[in-house]
Amino acid sequence: MPMQFPTDSVGLVQPQKKSFHEPISLISGRTLPGYELVYETYGELNQARSNAILVCHALSGDHHAAGFYANDKKPGWWDACIGPGKPFDTNRFHVVSVNNIGSCKGSTGPNTINPETGNYYGPDFPIVTVKDWVHTQHTLMQSLGIEKWAAVIGGSLGGMQAMQWSIDYPDKVGHALVIAAASRLSAQNIGFNEVARQAILSDPEFHGGHFYSHNTIPRRGLMLARMLGHITYLSDDAMRAKFGRELREGHLNYDFSVEFQVESYLRYQGSAFVEHFDANTYLLMTKALDYFDPASEYENDLVTALKQATAKFLVVSFTSDWRFAPERSKEIVKTLIEARRQVSYAEVEASGGHDAFLMPITYYMQVLNSYMDKVAEEVGA
Amino acid sequence: MPMQFPTDSVGLVQPQKKSFHEPISLISGRTLPGYELVYETYGELNQARSNAILVCHALSGDHHAAGFYANDKKPGWWDACIGPGKPFDTNRFHVVSVNNIGSCKGSTGPNTINPETGNYYGPDFPIVTVKDWVHTQHTLMQSLGIEKWAAVIGGSLGGMQAMQWSIDYPDKVGHALVIAAASRLSAQNIGFNEVARQAILSDPEFHGGHFYSHNTIPRRGLMLARMLGHITYLSDDAMRAKFGRELREGHLNYDFSVEFQVESYLRYQGSAFVEHFDANTYLLMTKALDYFDPASEYENDLVTALKQATAKFLVVSFTSDWRFAPERSKEIVKTLIEARRQVSYAEVEASGGHDAFLMPITYYMQVLNSYMDKVAEEVGA
Repeated sequence: MPMQFPTDSVGLVQPQKKSFHEPISLISGRTLPGYELVYETYGELNQARSNAILVCHALSGDHHAAGFYANDKKPGWWDACIGPGKPFDTNRFHVVSVNNIGSCKGSTGPNTINPETGNYYGPDFPIVTVKDWVHTQHTLMQSLGIEKWAAVIGGSLGGMQAMQWSIDYPDKVGHALVIAAASRLSAQNIGFNEVARQAILSDPEFHGGHFYSHNTIPRRGLMLARMLGHITYLSDDAMRAKFGRELREGHLNYDFSVEFQVESYLRYQGSAFVEHFDANTYLLMTKALDYFDPASEYENDLVTALKQATAKFLVVSFTSDWRFAPERSKEIVKTLIEARRQVSYAEVEASGGHDAFLMPITYYMQVLNSYMDKVAEEVGA
Repeated sequence: MPMQFPTDSVGLVQPQKKSFHEPISLISGRTLPGYELVYETYGELNQARSNAILVCHALSGDHHAAGFYANDKKPGWWDACIGPGKPFDTNRFHVVSVNNIGSCKGSTGPNTINPETGNYYGPDFPIVTVKDWVHTQHTLMQSLGIEKWAAVIGGSLGGMQAMQWSIDYPDKVGHALVIAAASRLSAQNIGFNEVARQAILSDPEFHGGHFYSHNTIPRRGLMLARMLGHITYLSDDAMRAKFGRELREGHLNYDFSVEFQVESYLRYQGSAFVEHFDANTYLLMTKALDYFDPASEYENDLVTALKQATAKFLVVSFTSDWRFAPERSKEIVKTLIEARRQVSYAEVEASGGHDAFLMPITYYMQVLNSYMDKVAEEVGA
């Protein structure tokens, strides 16, 4: 029986892969001898090659942003926004979604083989930064024959990549959509990341990152990291609405078993995550978050940094997002105005916390639709 | 050389201990054959025995609330508030500060000997609740010959005990001071506690709670729990002011060593805590927090619960406290008004987050001073 897809879905999709054999110098000072990038595309590139948009993923994301794999019931992570008639309309745009290096979803990363040793990179994989990702995405862009993105788009860590693109390759970005992001992490955010890292690093099954060769995974540490992450992606209100103080068995046990629904949810999310995510990658991703600070290249002046950009900006935040609160987005907006850039800003009323950027919230979809409609007109898509 | 103390200090103090040999039935359904309570007192009990106030401690607190031990440079945890001329003025009040059962600071708990087995209680120590603590504090009260507290006072988990006192022993509480507390934890708070518990429970050195006999401690788990706790006790603003994005060595290392000051602080706090706190106690304390819900005994109606009380209330919250936000205090105030109780409320402008309740903030001290002045007048102290 053939699979049936919703009419606004891009349907069955397949990842592609490109290999790059030129060594790349990373911000850390280290070099990768070469790398592979896995990516997906949705919608056709037009004759003028003017309708390409780049989607950048967040901490645990990947290249599978929309559509379905064969035998998969769940679509890609941003299927709410990508498809025919959706904000990133595949009838008009050629959407490129790329998995970043350091990830564990197919592009070169800790769980791939280091050609120089024949073993997994593991903990020897170098620390990568948002700027490195933008660099590799640019290389992919060139190999795809795309000269300018109509838009670079991302939420959370993905929004940081959109910002970095606008600064590093100003003439190659028409619009930057910076969603639920910040121009740099607060001490609190770094603190949460550090607890997650320590959970992984201190797990005896981590083996200094060489757990593959010990035929094990640092299950406990990665699970704790993910549980903590989940709490910070959700709002207090969303958790109250979702779980309240509901008891799983209707009564207290007076022991350390699962009692409240929220405990059950977190343990489930944590243990499911462990099965499909790499602990070394989790460490790398949190470092990329902590390090992101584009102002640091411009004498710690974000205005000067953003003056490099010629893109137009859409900045979006969500009222209940306390990990990257609206205040952080407003800082970006204020700085863009000071830098004399063109910026639109939408603060979306949402109870879903940081994760709201993944959800089909009506006002949010309207904002993206209107904005991308203008972008499409500009590029003749 | 004799120790010199500030003139507003209670000076050198010594803990006392009382043993209770009657078995106590706990809310969990289990029984303790007897127990010991360690406590301190500051200031004299007056002839009328009307000037006693009870101070209740929070998660990691103990009976040492004020003054100094010999050779100790740091005073008790609430020294800002307790002493001659301070809000809980030891020239007027007889302050009693008791260590709760289940703690690891001298009262009967997991790190004391179970008389029935001759071994440490360890994980066999029963789960205790706020109501159980109030019960044992009441037993101590009787043995001290005190018939009514002029006030029962506490911050955070201590504020929950003050609320419970007002409900369970209405005629024995003149005033309840409920500071930086909530009538029950939110799902988010339970979530954070659950991550802390899982960190401890999943540490291989935990040995199901029998780590004493393995001559080890679950250092990693307890450290993670404390690091996470610290982030939630501080506000985002306080962390920004304290650490910003300062680098410990002035430059990035591109590895997983300590880089940002906030990482250094959290690791230090975590590893220092491990040396003087018991992991089984940490588990018990977080459960007492999660379980606290006085409305549950009154058909989930907090108004009915608080109608039991005859005490007058002072409720205090701190603007930057997101663990027990002002909204949670206002819920208590609203409910007290609905229950036709007398309540005063102060929201203190403070950047210090949840920990602000321990700090000598001017307006906070003024509020406590004025309130306790009235209490002193009422009881002729």
